[in-house]
Amino acid sequence: MGRRSPDVAALVTGARDGDPRSVARLISLVEQESPLLREVAVRLAPHTGAAQVLGVTGPPGVGKSTTTTALVAGLRAAGKRVGVLAVDPSSPFSGGALLGDRVRMGVHAEDPGVYVRSMASRGHLGGLSWATPQALRVLDAAGCDVVVVETVGVGQSELEVASLADTTVVLVAPGMGDGVQAAKAGILEVADVLVVNKADRDGADRTARELRSMLTMAPAQGWTPPVLRTVAARDEGIGEVLAAVEDHRGWLAASGEGVRRRRVRAAREVEAIAVGELRRRMGDVGGAAAIDALADRVVAGELDPYSAADELVGRL
Amino acid sequence: MGRRSPDVAALVTGARDGDPRSVARLISLVEQESPLLREVAVRLAPHTGAAQVLGVTGPPGVGKSTTTTALVAGLRAAGKRVGVLAVDPSSPFSGGALLGDRVRMGVHAEDPGVYVRSMASRGHLGGLSWATPQALRVLDAAGCDVVVVETVGVGQSELEVASLADTTVVLVAPGMGDGVQAAKAGILEVADVLVVNKADRDGADRTARELRSMLTMAPAQGWTPPVLRTVAARDEGIGEVLAAVEDHRGWLAASGEGVRRRRVRAAREVEAIAVGELRRRMGDVGGAAAIDALADRVVAGELDPYSAADELVGRL
Repeated sequence: MGRRSPDVAALVTGARDGDPRSVARLISLVEQESPLLREVAVRLAPHTGAAQVLGVTGPPGVGKSTTTTALVAGLRAAGKRVGVLAVDPSSPFSGGALLGDRVRMGVHAEDPGVYVRSMASRGHLGGLSWATPQALRVLDAAGCDVVVVETVGVGQSELEVASLADTTVVLVAPGMGDGVQAAKAGILEVADVLVVNKADRDGADRTARELRSMLTMAPAQGWTPPVLRTVAARDEGIGEVLAAVEDHRGWLAASGEGVRRRRVRAAREVEAIAVGELRRRMGDVGGAAAIDALADRVVAGELDPYSAADELVGRL
Repeated sequence: MGRRSPDVAALVTGARDGDPRSVARLISLVEQESPLLREVAVRLAPHTGAAQVLGVTGPPGVGKSTTTTALVAGLRAAGKRVGVLAVDPSSPFSGGALLGDRVRMGVHAEDPGVYVRSMASRGHLGGLSWATPQALRVLDAAGCDVVVVETVGVGQSELEVASLADTTVVLVAPGMGDGVQAAKAGILEVADVLVVNKADRDGADRTARELRSMLTMAPAQGWTPPVLRTVAARDEGIGEVLAAVEDHRGWLAASGEGVRRRRVRAAREVEAIAVGELRRRMGDVGGAAAIDALADRVVAGELDPYSAADELVGRL
């Protein structure tokens, strides 16, 4: 079978049987927006929904990759199959298409129970690649018990990882003002578990205190994020993080919040795909020339942009 | 006339006659997404297109507001009417609705030839408020020769200001690595004029050199951004910045790039409004319950998200 027209059914079967090359090929198909994307989605659907999605985010330099590696080790020790999607331009196992189909993590490089994949770090709007939810489904269908999505927390991407994840772990580094920065960036709002990493450094106590203090000011939503301390590079505190993630998972199930989050996630994804399709159709209706003609009339003041948009929509 | 149902025609006439309260009311109508928004757009359209749009952006702390104030003084000295839209949460004259309808700039507070307006700093996707292009049209119709749009340059907002502006001035502070940071952030790509502000500080020469060196590596696009030095707080170098802006304006006109930029800007705006309208219609078709029902089937693996999106689009 040539690489040009892959047999999607065979790839899905291969992925479900644990063949890493099939997993890699499927992720490549969704990442490249292959014409087979829809077939991939249709064939994956019946085999998805079981994986727990764990988001790991935080500012550059906080130790996300080290923490992810340590979390994976902990999950493996508990006998879980793990997938990692690194959507982080600074991650040592990131780099998207540049690094080819598949990159293994240092200590997990020879472990058949771990899939690691770096994703093109940015979608067209600067956020998480649109392919991330599809790649997540591939790893889900491939039998991963947990999929860790690692993203760099700058601007809106931490909001997006939160919308993808069942549980979001936010990493913060010790240091003056970090807590305030985190609050400003909206990080507290998305955190289910807060971790002060590099907790052997000066200021870790203070940062943890600041975070706790800010959490008490936020309205309680039924779950108060614990503030934990780790030194991921020495594997310290990782067990506690995984325990907190399990606690949160239990709360998600008991409160119904887990179902709600997944519904919101799917609704957003469906809406985004629908909007993309409508955008494509608008482009098709008369082509770019038609939009340019409308734009020229707006520039000339002959037409206001709302009336121009009405014309465009009317052609659908 | 009560505030509840303003007479849009009278407000537009008032704005064109230079009445600051009419200008403020019109911007409030677009910012609040009033039901009168379309009427405002229709009535403004014939009076727009004359204003030169000048974007000012850069990282927090670089001196954007000080520079904007100095640029406004220079433009006023040249007899120009000036509008300022501050879309910058850290700007002393920003703060959106919190500060009420209208805020005047320090030294320009009593100058009837200057309108200053702070905008809600973030749109729903974290970028420039969607209302910014409409507010720009209000100031354009009100007879501003130049509208300065000040935005904080973090992440994607500097890309958006560049898509709004005829000429984008990017401010950089002196200091090791700033040049590299600017390049990383894509700032060089959007800059028409580069300014090292606070140029009395150590490292200004080096930063200017770095920026020039990086510019020589970028492919020439017919316009090479000049790298200037200012101390905006002492009004040093501002004349040179305004001269560079005028040079760029001349190049825009001579090369046809000015027309092209305005067309792209209008086309994006029209498309965004059309997508918003389609999104609203999708919400109306069966309401949120329909999307939730589709989402539930996606979560359950009964349906893939692409087929769900097809169902949604098919109902339009």
